[in-house]
Amino acid sequence: MKTEYLIIGGDAAGLSAAVQIKRQKPKASIQVINKGRIISYSACGMPYVLAGDIPSSEKLIHFTPETFKEKRGVSVAVGQEAVDLLPEESTVVVKDLEKNKTVRMKYEKLLIATGAEPIRLPFLENGTEGIFTFSNIEDLREVDKFLLKRQPRKIAIIGAGNIGLELAEAFYRKGKDVDLFDILEEPAALWPVMVRKAVLEKIREKGIRFHGKTAVREVLRKGDSFQLKTDEGEFETDVIFSVVGTRPSTIFCGNKLEKMKNGALLIDRQGKTSLPGIYAAGDCASVFHRILEKNVYFPLGSTANKMGRIAGMNMAGKDIAFPGIVGTQILKFFELSLAKAGLTEKEAAEEGMSVESFSALRKDKAGYFPGAEKTTAKIVVEKRSGRVLGAEAVTGGNAAQFIDPAAVTIHGRMIVRDLAWMDFAYAPPFAPVWNALISAALKSLKI
Amino acid sequence: MKTEYLIIGGDAAGLSAAVQIKRQKPKASIQVINKGRIISYSACGMPYVLAGDIPSSEKLIHFTPETFKEKRGVSVAVGQEAVDLLPEESTVVVKDLEKNKTVRMKYEKLLIATGAEPIRLPFLENGTEGIFTFSNIEDLREVDKFLLKRQPRKIAIIGAGNIGLELAEAFYRKGKDVDLFDILEEPAALWPVMVRKAVLEKIREKGIRFHGKTAVREVLRKGDSFQLKTDEGEFETDVIFSVVGTRPSTIFCGNKLEKMKNGALLIDRQGKTSLPGIYAAGDCASVFHRILEKNVYFPLGSTANKMGRIAGMNMAGKDIAFPGIVGTQILKFFELSLAKAGLTEKEAAEEGMSVESFSALRKDKAGYFPGAEKTTAKIVVEKRSGRVLGAEAVTGGNAAQFIDPAAVTIHGRMIVRDLAWMDFAYAPPFAPVWNALISAALKSLKI
Repeated sequence: MKTEYLIIGGDAAGLSAAVQIKRQKPKASIQVINKGRIISYSACGMPYVLAGDIPSSEKLIHFTPETFKEKRGVSVAVGQEAVDLLPEESTVVVKDLEKNKTVRMKYEKLLIATGAEPIRLPFLENGTEGIFTFSNIEDLREVDKFLLKRQPRKIAIIGAGNIGLELAEAFYRKGKDVDLFDILEEPAALWPVMVRKAVLEKIREKGIRFHGKTAVREVLRKGDSFQLKTDEGEFETDVIFSVVGTRPSTIFCGNKLEKMKNGALLIDRQGKTSLPGIYAAGDCASVFHRILEKNVYFPLGSTANKMGRIAGMNMAGKDIAFPGIVGTQILKFFELSLAKAGLTEKEAAEEGMSVESFSALRKDKAGYFPGAEKTTAKIVVEKRSGRVLGAEAVTGGNAAQFIDPAAVTIHGRMIVRDLAWMDFAYAPPFAPVWNALISAALKSLKI
Repeated sequence: MKTEYLIIGGDAAGLSAAVQIKRQKPKASIQVINKGRIISYSACGMPYVLAGDIPSSEKLIHFTPETFKEKRGVSVAVGQEAVDLLPEESTVVVKDLEKNKTVRMKYEKLLIATGAEPIRLPFLENGTEGIFTFSNIEDLREVDKFLLKRQPRKIAIIGAGNIGLELAEAFYRKGKDVDLFDILEEPAALWPVMVRKAVLEKIREKGIRFHGKTAVREVLRKGDSFQLKTDEGEFETDVIFSVVGTRPSTIFCGNKLEKMKNGALLIDRQGKTSLPGIYAAGDCASVFHRILEKNVYFPLGSTANKMGRIAGMNMAGKDIAFPGIVGTQILKFFELSLAKAGLTEKEAAEEGMSVESFSALRKDKAGYFPGAEKTTAKIVVEKRSGRVLGAEAVTGGNAAQFIDPAAVTIHGRMIVRDLAWMDFAYAPPFAPVWNALISAALKSLKI
């Protein structure tokens, strides 16, 4: 079997690439293969289905293989797992998971967009009823079924990263009794101090039991429930979520392509891997960080879409380079909107940069306007140059309103004097006279 | 009477300056004088008091002369109108409006922060009951009293600019019958085409009667009501609002200071007027436009605060230059949030720039998230350079989320390729994968 363009992975990166290739080369043969049966869905929306904000997991699915073929003109074969890569033969060995047999697929150009998979805890049995990961829509459906059947009361979540926190919120809002475990002292470990602190306060306010510095060592089934043995004692629970992080799904590539330590495929700003004709994009790949000026692993749906689009265009003969991310992230946790862009003080220090930081507490609208929410913005400024290297925001409103302008400031290598007098929108229902970013920047000017 | 620092005007610009001078020179004598009895209030909030969003006009007042003296240490004399400027004697002639007598006040440094005043229609009698302007909190209180006493049913608004539109919304929401007149064909004349169109659609949807291209020529009292005679016929109404624009309150300066055609005092980026020792800030002054690279008249509360602060610092001996506005504006009109930054196509063309524009319709959150609102973003791009010169946004959400990042892009003289791949925040409850700005920018790349 042979195709001009072979794309492994039918989600954000893979399908964005497919659409671009089809646009540029309408007559080319393009084949997408996907391990799971469901393609083109928003994994980021899954916690909100669980919480009941979104009525059904169907809402998260943009395309089925049939509608993608019909609307975008590209065929997607599901239940097909890439199990080996033979670059010297321009071949991927693909296993049909239903028929349990392998075929060899030859390509002229290959895109690896296999995403990431959950890291599994060694003491948790895969597929045990009541023990879940939460990385794809099949997981969500299994969880939904289990919740309906068993009506569990107690939920244990192992891992207090973004997904762990989103799950904790969803179950709290459903009236469940939530225990949240992490081996680190604080939740939201990948976030800056200011955000971690706000998350921890919210956890306490809600009465979610957070067990920091607590390694779960063993899980025993006790009737319909489980017993978790940890360094800090034993806990009973009805359901266990194991959400301790993800790793790039690149094992099938062996060591034929250059990888980061965690297995992410190293790519250049056009999406090219270390071998000609092979591209990668999305959560299985590295991405160029504009401020660090190097490749990092920073898996996000929005970046996967962009990098897929760029890889696809380049595969089809264009010459497009990605300007790079600045590390923007945003998280909802109960009433809070939490965001960062650029470098934290710690990250800047690790790069040998000498920085100062400044923060300001303001409202997100005119203070007297109903619904105005407290907003703290923090900026990280390089001492030598005055350049804005990072920003953080915590608000009861929408942190995108503050972090997006900061992301542009950082992307554009602008200095703090620019931010201090920035012509931001002002009207009482939408924005305050003194935006928290401006106030933080004015402090840094020390005038 | 003599003071080191004399400030005429006790609102955004004047008081911001006073605070800065006090900070830099705690022992200096500083005197603020103000024509009206109420200082330090948000005029921008007034329509929302009228609509009932904000319970009382008191909420809009930040400081009284007493609390300003107590908290900021600067004395403000109210009921004092500047009636003449004698620069060669470093003197302002000030009229005490209550005692009806004038005094001469000598200064070492003077800030003119007198704001703007409504342009009055020649055929409307000042002070007639039932005929109002809407530029200060005294106006608001008069209107409130009248509404309570008379319970009018029909409201006529002459002038469909920002204030006219805000009044139309407020009265519509109070169940009044609204006629909105403008001599121009479309409402919101100072806004770009896309915004004007959205406003007109909303006016029609709500059933507000907009009379474009209609000059009101005469107003006759008929019992408790009025008859408006216009080019397009006669209209009955119970109340008339005359909101046809404002002009800088600089008549007392005569021609002793350089002015723009409309009377705005010309200042440099430090707030200095054409005479040494005399500064100006706020709605009575020009402001430097960073993209047009010249002074413009663009009166806004947020800019008045900034320019007041800058003028104050410079008056106190610092050396701070304003980087300039980019013409950012935002307006609420019913469910819509409307905004612009930078230049419109028309403004760019007037500057002799060759531009193209691109727009995209997206949601402000993930499309499947409840409450996601349609958002149109438009960007104006210089053909030669690819530089982003302008942006516009119309959304059911908060246009600040889109126009503020655009304002930074424009301020930083960034090109459209930067915006097209910008690392904006993404999470389903707060922002979409493809932000409308990104989508508009990608179109412009034509790849």
